[in-house]
Amino acid sequence: MPALKFCRAVELSKAHALMSPGPVVLISSAHGGLRNVMTAAWSMPLDFSPAKVAIVVDRQHFTRELMEKSGEFVLNIPPKSLLDKVMAAGSQSGRGHDKFAACGLEAVAAAKVAAPLVAGCVGWLECRIVPEAHNQQAHDLFIAEVVAAWADERAFHDGCWQPCEESLRPLHYLSGNRFMVMGTIVEAPAA
Amino acid sequence: MPALKFCRAVELSKAHALMSPGPVVLISSAHGGLRNVMTAAWSMPLDFSPAKVAIVVDRQHFTRELMEKSGEFVLNIPPKSLLDKVMAAGSQSGRGHDKFAACGLEAVAAAKVAAPLVAGCVGWLECRIVPEAHNQQAHDLFIAEVVAAWADERAFHDGCWQPCEESLRPLHYLSGNRFMVMGTIVEAPAA
Repeated sequence: MPALKFCRAVELSKAHALMSPGPVVLISSAHGGLRNVMTAAWSMPLDFSPAKVAIVVDRQHFTRELMEKSGEFVLNIPPKSLLDKVMAAGSQSGRGHDKFAACGLEAVAAAKVAAPLVAGCVGWLECRIVPEAHNQQAHDLFIAEVVAAWADERAFHDGCWQPCEESLRPLHYLSGNRFMVMGTIVEAPAA
Repeated sequence: MPALKFCRAVELSKAHALMSPGPVVLISSAHGGLRNVMTAAWSMPLDFSPAKVAIVVDRQHFTRELMEKSGEFVLNIPPKSLLDKVMAAGSQSGRGHDKFAACGLEAVAAAKVAAPLVAGCVGWLECRIVPEAHNQQAHDLFIAEVVAAWADERAFHDGCWQPCEESLRPLHYLSGNRFMVMGTIVEAPAA
């Protein structure tokens, strides 16, 4: 269990529910004593079992270099309270310095991968890349299996995001420096 | 221009912004005099120019059969006012009957593809599939180029989703019959 307050394990069969609504993520990666973190808006669940995700990471990013060398990464789901740091992590490169420190983000050891978890997030998916040269080279698209998943129990439990105080709600990327905060939850009538 | 009130063209270079926050979509497809529509939660932008999207469509779906035969589909972004119909379109098959009629959804001619637009939605992406046998067969993953894009000007303009009345805001899929309605828009400080 990661050393994060309110952090609880999410069954791998429910990991897709962390990503289904389309939150912005912080991708963290590490290799050879270096680590990095970057903001990414283009990701989605890809399969239920084994749990898989797909994410777009441009070839210029240092995070991608560490992802490709280690074969691993973590998708961290930041809440509104991290808005400024999410913007900062999406606006600068981590080459040559420690972007965690530069952005005021705290790294915590993950359970199954070398990439760290970002403290203060409300969901975490530890991922191992399924190597697919065509997708990575032609589309900057990475496919990965989720090997461990965690959530802040105040924001996500019973396999679903829950109503909670706004500071704990995931962000969704709009454009420029604009984000949407997860809104009200509605239930459709059984069809 | 589609025969839809409040519908305005979205530049293809801005089409990604319709999908970035991760809304649930209705996929519509048509071939050989048949048409269908289904709800899908797993999709994302894939490229800026040419504008591309990625979407997961399981092999059991009739919508997929029409997508593969025609090479085309439309991603329609439904707002909260269509919640009940979105749930209905995700809970039944369109094989053997017209699911538009069964779900109370209205189809309107698209500009560049045979698949229809769904009236009452607030964003539309007309798509042509980039054939990728491995992705379609191994991952149920379709990659497509966006050939036309439209939005309801009350909900999306200037390349970004905008604050608007709740009935016009996109939905995001959570779990079971639960959806999240697009929440408040916040701006991060320039990093």
